[in-house]
This record gives sequence, C-alpha cells and structure tokens, in this order.
Amino acid sequence: MTNIFKFNLLTNDGESRLGVLSTYYGSINTPAFMPVGTSATVKGIMPDQILTTNSEIILCNTYHLMLRPGKDVIKKLGGINNFMNWKRPILSDSGGFQIMSLSSLAKSAEDGVSFKSHIDGKKIFMSPENCMDLQVTFDVDIAMVLDECIPFPIDYKSAEKSMLRSMNWAKRSKKSWIPREGKGLFGIVQGGIYEDLRQDSVSMLQEINFDGFAIGGLAVGEGQEEMLKVLDYTTKKLPTDKPRYLMGVGKPDDIIKAVLKGVDMFDCVLPTRSGRTGQAFTRNGPINIRNACYANDISPLDENIVNPASNNYSKAYLHHLFKSKEILGAVLLTLHNISFYQWLMRSIREAIKNKKMAEFSSNFLKTYSSGSK
Amino acid sequence: MTNIFKFNLLTNDGESRLGVLSTYYGSINTPAFMPVGTSATVKGIMPDQILTTNSEIILCNTYHLMLRPGKDVIKKLGGINNFMNWKRPILSDSGGFQIMSLSSLAKSAEDGVSFKSHIDGKKIFMSPENCMDLQVTFDVDIAMVLDECIPFPIDYKSAEKSMLRSMNWAKRSKKSWIPREGKGLFGIVQGGIYEDLRQDSVSMLQEINFDGFAIGGLAVGEGQEEMLKVLDYTTKKLPTDKPRYLMGVGKPDDIIKAVLKGVDMFDCVLPTRSGRTGQAFTRNGPINIRNACYANDISPLDENIVNPASNNYSKAYLHHLFKSKEILGAVLLTLHNISFYQWLMRSIREAIKNKKMAEFSSNFLKTYSSGSK
Repeated sequence: MTNIFKFNLLTNDGESRLGVLSTYYGSINTPAFMPVGTSATVKGIMPDQILTTNSEIILCNTYHLMLRPGKDVIKKLGGINNFMNWKRPILSDSGGFQIMSLSSLAKSAEDGVSFKSHIDGKKIFMSPENCMDLQVTFDVDIAMVLDECIPFPIDYKSAEKSMLRSMNWAKRSKKSWIPREGKGLFGIVQGGIYEDLRQDSVSMLQEINFDGFAIGGLAVGEGQEEMLKVLDYTTKKLPTDKPRYLMGVGKPDDIIKAVLKGVDMFDCVLPTRSGRTGQAFTRNGPINIRNACYANDISPLDENIVNPASNNYSKAYLHHLFKSKEILGAVLLTLHNISFYQWLMRSIREAIKNKKMAEFSSNFLKTYSSGSK
Repeated sequence: MTNIFKFNLLTNDGESRLGVLSTYYGSINTPAFMPVGTSATVKGIMPDQILTTNSEIILCNTYHLMLRPGKDVIKKLGGINNFMNWKRPILSDSGGFQIMSLSSLAKSAEDGVSFKSHIDGKKIFMSPENCMDLQVTFDVDIAMVLDECIPFPIDYKSAEKSMLRSMNWAKRSKKSWIPREGKGLFGIVQGGIYEDLRQDSVSMLQEINFDGFAIGGLAVGEGQEEMLKVLDYTTKKLPTDKPRYLMGVGKPDDIIKAVLKGVDMFDCVLPTRSGRTGQAFTRNGPINIRNACYANDISPLDENIVNPASNNYSKAYLHHLFKSKEILGAVLLTLHNISFYQWLMRSIREAIKNKKMAEFSSNFLKTYSSGSK
C-alpha cells in the first residue's frame, strides 16, 4: 500500500457527500471536522487525548508557527508531526487570514504581504513562495496556498482585484510547492459574495490543478444565509472528485447546512475556545456550565458520546471546576466539545450513507434549537 | 478479601521502612508520595492521567472543599472519589494549616477556629467535630484530625500550649469520627522544635490510638537541618506498626533524608506548582524549561521515566509551549514532575528492599546536586 494522496467519494445523498481522504499520516472520513491546534497544540490537550475525541486530522497555523518556534526548530525536530507528537494528518492554514487579523501594519502587494509580528513587532515579508517553503518544511499532509483576505462588506471592483491577486498567488504557490508522497496542496476559492467572481476563481484554481479546494473569505460577518448562498453556487462548480473545505466554519447548524451544500471539511475554534470559557455543546444546544442550575446536577454532559469527559464527570463537578478557576474545567470541556463535534460528524456520515441526511439534519436542528441554559 | 485499613511493614533498611498501606480504595506502597489535588483536582490533570504517573493516592483539602463546592454537593455526588472520578485512595488534609495561611481574621480558641473565607469573606467556625463530619461526608480513605498551626519561630510556652490544644482536638476528633470499613484516621504530632513536647505529643496520640501518625508543624521555615533533627527524635518514639506521614514535604532531597529517618508518606505542591511555572525535575536537579538553551533541544526530559510527558516530547517543544503561554506546557510538566517523584519513590522502595538505601541516597544526592540550568 502506498501513501498516495487521494480522495474517494463513496456516495452522495443529494448534495451531501460521503468520502475518504487518504494522506501520508492516515485516512480522514469526510465530512470531517478539524480541531484547531494553532501553535502546534490543541490548547490544554495531549495528542493521546485528541485521539479519544475521534478526531482524524487537526489544523495548525503557518503564521503562528513561523513566528514561534520558527521554521528552523520545526525542521530540526523533523517536521510538525514529530514536533508536537501527533502521528495523524495535519492541515496547515497558510496564515493569510491571521496576518490580516493579528499582525499590525499588514500591507498586501502583488509580490506578497508585509506585516509586523504580533509577538515582538519584527517586520516580516511573506510571499506565496515563502509560505510554501514554510509548509513544506513543516511537512504537513495538507498545505494551503497563501491568499489575500478581504474585509466584509467589500465592493465588486475591490473583490475582483483581490480575487485575481489570490489566484496569481495560488499559481505561484503551486509552482513552488514540492510534491511529496501522501502530501497535498489545496487552493482557496475567493471572490466575496459575487457569484461570477467565485465561479471565475473556481475555474482558475481548476486550471492550476489542486488536490483539494477550500472556500475562503466566508464566516467573516456575512451571516449564515449569505454564506449558504455563496456555497450553493460555488460547490456546484467545484469538481466532484476533490475534497471541499469550508474554512473557519462553524457552529453545528452551519456545518450541517454546509454539508447539505456539498462541503466535506471544516475547522473552527468554537468547540475549543468556547470550552475554555465554560460553554458546552449538547444535543439541546449550548449550555453555560457556570450557570447556578448546574451546581448540584449529578448528570454528565452526554452519556452517549464516547469520551471520558462527556460521561465520567457530573455537571456539578464541571461547574465546581469553572467556579474554582481550575484548568481541568477547560481541559474537560474542550475534550467534550470536540467529541460532540466528532459525534455530529459521525452522525452526518451515517446519515449520508443511509440516504437520510435530510431527515437527520431536520431532527438535529429541531432538538438543537429546542432550548439551552 | 475485606477492605480492612491496615499497614504492613515489610522490611527495614536502617531506619528506612518498606511497607504497604491498605485502604478501601486500594493499596499504597510506602514510602509514598501523594500529589496535591487541593480542590478535588490535581491542577490540569485528568484522573486517568494521574494513573500514568504511578501515583497510588492523592491529597485533597478539607478547607477548600468545605468552602467550594461545599459538603452538600459532595454528599449528593456520593463522596469525593465519585465527585472527582478518582477511584483510588484519597487523604484529606484537615485544613488547620490552610485556615491559618489563606483565610483572614483566623482566631483559634479551645473550642475551635473562627475565620473568614478567602473566597467570599463569609464568617466560618470550625471545630474538631465539624472537621470530622466534613471528612466523613467526603468519605476519604484517610482523614486527618484538626490541629492548630503555629508560626515559626515560637517560644516554648506557646508551643506547649498549642500542642496541648491540638492534642485535645485530636481526642475530640477521634471521638466524633465514624469508623467505616477501609477508612482510617491519622493523628498529627505537634510541639514545634522542642523534643520533649514532640515526645509528649506522640505519647498522647498513641494513647488516643490512631491508624497513622502525621508529623505536622514542619516545613514552615525551620530549615532542613532542624527538620531532620525533629524527625530524628520524633519517629524513634512512634510505633513501628503504623504509617508515618511528614506533612507538606518536600524537595527530592528532603524526602530522601526523611525516609532515612523512618518516614513513610509525603505530600507537597512542589512538583505540580513548579511544573506550572516551567520548572522540571531531573536526576541532575531542577531545570527551567524557559531557558533559551532548550529552544533547540531535541532530547526529552527523561527517557527512562515511564510517562508520555517525560519521553514523548522534546525540550524544544516544551520550551515552545511555555514561551507561547500554552496550557499544555503546564499539563506536561506537571505530569512529568509527578512521574519523576514517583520514580524517586519507586527507587527508594527498591533500595530499601535490597538494603541499599544508604548507597542509593548518596548516589542520588550527588547526581542531583551536580548541576542544573
């Protein structure tokens, strides 16, 4: 068996797709959710614990890792998987979004982006070529091209100009990326909320030929309805034999609705970040474990989700940990939330397999919005 | 097989003792180290992870748990073991020390101690009887009598008066404690640094008859030499058929030297607390993982200590986590440090068994003080 990077589409249920993405470090069942491990760590969680959530791939960030610990350290440690002791697939975000949102004085030009590090103010220039060099050195299973991130809302002319620049960068990225066994490179569709721009972007990326296609520039404030509209006309144009990744999305209901539009992969900080502040996802919607009503609640978060964090600890204990500002509270809610997301993805995959995605999603969404405390 | 609370002394090597303490939730090989889980959590660590450190018992604190979550919640959850999902022995400190060090306006009288909660300023009164009621409700395997904690230094008259009050409290504690299968109660020897007071205290506690004897009022600033002097004349008076617990101690060299004086049990915040700040214990002494010399160090903390935290992560990665203020750094160093302490205890037990305690301790101490960064 070779470690060829490939995507097998197993079956469809309407637009929803069931597939398997094979990479150097293993297979990923899709639709898939990727927990965020920005700086080569899913915050507070050991890799062995990530495995207990049934996650098959995690996401790291090129921008953060470039600044700290830097390319040389990761190279010396033999790549990001060895560095962080995670022996499963990793996708690295290219950092385009983080440069715009975290660094100061970011300035984009045709050549690349100049910015100041949010850590020490050091001036840095990143080109599509630098970005590929970093991700090839990290040796991630899935690398992302550098793209230009634009604000929302934005006028047509500016969106077009930025999309064309991103497509030029995509071409340069592909050219400088070094193909290796089991490793893939994804292009990123841009074009704001303009249908023809999105479709032009898809065509140009297909021309360049990538191993997968991400849909970028969404979840930036456009709202769920607008996002689904963009997905609708974008995924229809995407090739069926390559995985589709909706970047930075989202809430459980966003994910279900995007799967119904044919999306295969997701990442979002929500289960991890909100877990650290006391929000726990449940089938009946999110709850805040700090709420006084949980102080005496002997029930676990979810007996049917197979993770120790979901079924071996009472809400009363989790409430106690958060009231006492104990780190273990953040750890347990992070584990539970990721496990909840992975339970959702498994349920989605099961539903697609059984051609019951419409039924599953309608039932889930009804229960999920039924009420939370 | 019944769950009788009992101590079996297996062998001696000089004053050093090898034993097994059996309790309701299992057996503890002595000399033993108990990681501190003050508020029903070893900070940042899941119970399953505590097991990977080879810890056989942990310590909780009556003072903290009484204030939060309170007796009723723990009762409703069926005791502290169920509450925190730790199915191994727990010893609860009575809280005498914490009342004095954490609460404000603490005032000790013959009847008990009045103080204000460090959380919400609420006025609370704790008597030896309250303290027993709490620990019986928590249903810990080992309860500690309430004792009066005195400052260091203190004059003879004050030390005597306080010791006599503690002995009176010990008597009342024993009277109000409810014996249950596999559960034990320890008395606490007081008397400051005065030999005759310590010996009087031992006699009085033996008269009351406890399941084990703690040595309290040390590690409060008297220094190692003075501490060892007190241990020397105190342990000689203690019965050989009951476990001896030196409270709040200590550094690896303190532990070794106390074992040489016949101590069986220890607890200390050092491996956990210092782990959270970047200090890692090694055979060559403690190191600070934030030090720049570790930024590129591909070696793990200790390949021979059987814990993933000790051998699956490079110092470079741990350094990165601390520099990035990532919670996982604290988690991994806590796990490593506890594992280091448990490695030390296993080595000590092995040495006693082979009558090589003198040789082991001299070798360990020589290497341990050889240098650290």
